[in-house]
Amino acid sequence: MRYRRIPDETIRRLPIYLRGLIFATEQGKKNISSTDLADFVGVYSWQIRKDFAYFGDFGTRGVGYNVGKLTKEIKRILKLNTVQKAVLVGIGNLGMAILAFPGFRIYGLDIAAAFDINPKKVGRKIKDVTIENVSKLGTIRQRKIKLAVMAVPRKAAQATTDILVKAGVKGILNFSPSYLVVPKKVKVITIDIAMDMASLPYYIPAT
Amino acid sequence: MRYRRIPDETIRRLPIYLRGLIFATEQGKKNISSTDLADFVGVYSWQIRKDFAYFGDFGTRGVGYNVGKLTKEIKRILKLNTVQKAVLVGIGNLGMAILAFPGFRIYGLDIAAAFDINPKKVGRKIKDVTIENVSKLGTIRQRKIKLAVMAVPRKAAQATTDILVKAGVKGILNFSPSYLVVPKKVKVITIDIAMDMASLPYYIPAT
Repeated sequence: MRYRRIPDETIRRLPIYLRGLIFATEQGKKNISSTDLADFVGVYSWQIRKDFAYFGDFGTRGVGYNVGKLTKEIKRILKLNTVQKAVLVGIGNLGMAILAFPGFRIYGLDIAAAFDINPKKVGRKIKDVTIENVSKLGTIRQRKIKLAVMAVPRKAAQATTDILVKAGVKGILNFSPSYLVVPKKVKVITIDIAMDMASLPYYIPAT
Repeated sequence: MRYRRIPDETIRRLPIYLRGLIFATEQGKKNISSTDLADFVGVYSWQIRKDFAYFGDFGTRGVGYNVGKLTKEIKRILKLNTVQKAVLVGIGNLGMAILAFPGFRIYGLDIAAAFDINPKKVGRKIKDVTIENVSKLGTIRQRKIKLAVMAVPRKAAQATTDILVKAGVKGILNFSPSYLVVPKKVKVITIDIAMDMASLPYYIPAT
């Protein structure tokens, strides 16, 4: 089942709610109000209700949301109810950090393959994943990997993207601060650490 | 001059516009319409106009925005018109990647100090920055460092935050997937790579 006309912004917030719900589960909560969930995740409660309205009615007035049910529902919408395999391209410091990062698992994400251009790195095994030569990147199609994390230098980003798209990748998490040209059916999320940080000085009081 | 009642969302988008303007400058553009800037940065043009409206009138009808002027104006609003020093805490793989990352400079951000708990790392010099012992973190107050990047393990995140706040830090870029308790006047931006990635499977077609 596909949902139409749901804004990207809403989809982008669903994992935030999911994280809040996972934390609520850890704390033993069975039900949660939109106000409590809002406090938990730092989003306005009206925004939460508006986002959820796209998918029907999740809550019961006066009781709030059932944590278990809502977790399951959001996972289903995001297609996180089955393990999603992803490929990692570029095993520099950032790539290493991503490979070692335990946080993907709670969302059902699995870095199942890793590639680098440096022959010295090829063959090294990190956390059950053996680094492969980037020339073999096309083989991910047979392995049914549809997601990619790109931690390559900026100048290699577009060429890597083209190979990933050709190999059937539908979603790319991009760490290079560059605009990637992709077909309409491929979704790119770019994480630009410097850009995220650039909004912080605004909050420094003048003194 | 301080601006009141400007939503965090707007402040968060200003660096996106700034990045678009820097790219426009690189391409030799003197003026840019809100529609062109919108295409460039992937934000709706009405959103751009609405965001800019908080700060007065930046554009001229029919001509658009003057790229140089608008760049300067946004930098001023974000306090990026002077170099902003930041401290990095946690020099694991991610910390290393951050230290080596050249992208901060275009925003006037400078990782001026780095700390780690591992004595084997203390004293190592990476890109003009010598790693210091985390026990000396309090010294950043004298060095007038008001921004921090935290790349420490989740379990160390809150304790590190407390030290940073005590040392006068006003803005924290946090890479550990945890909620940090801070005084109201301290701004935290959390980057949760797994969470960002968790919205991607939604875009994989069912086939």
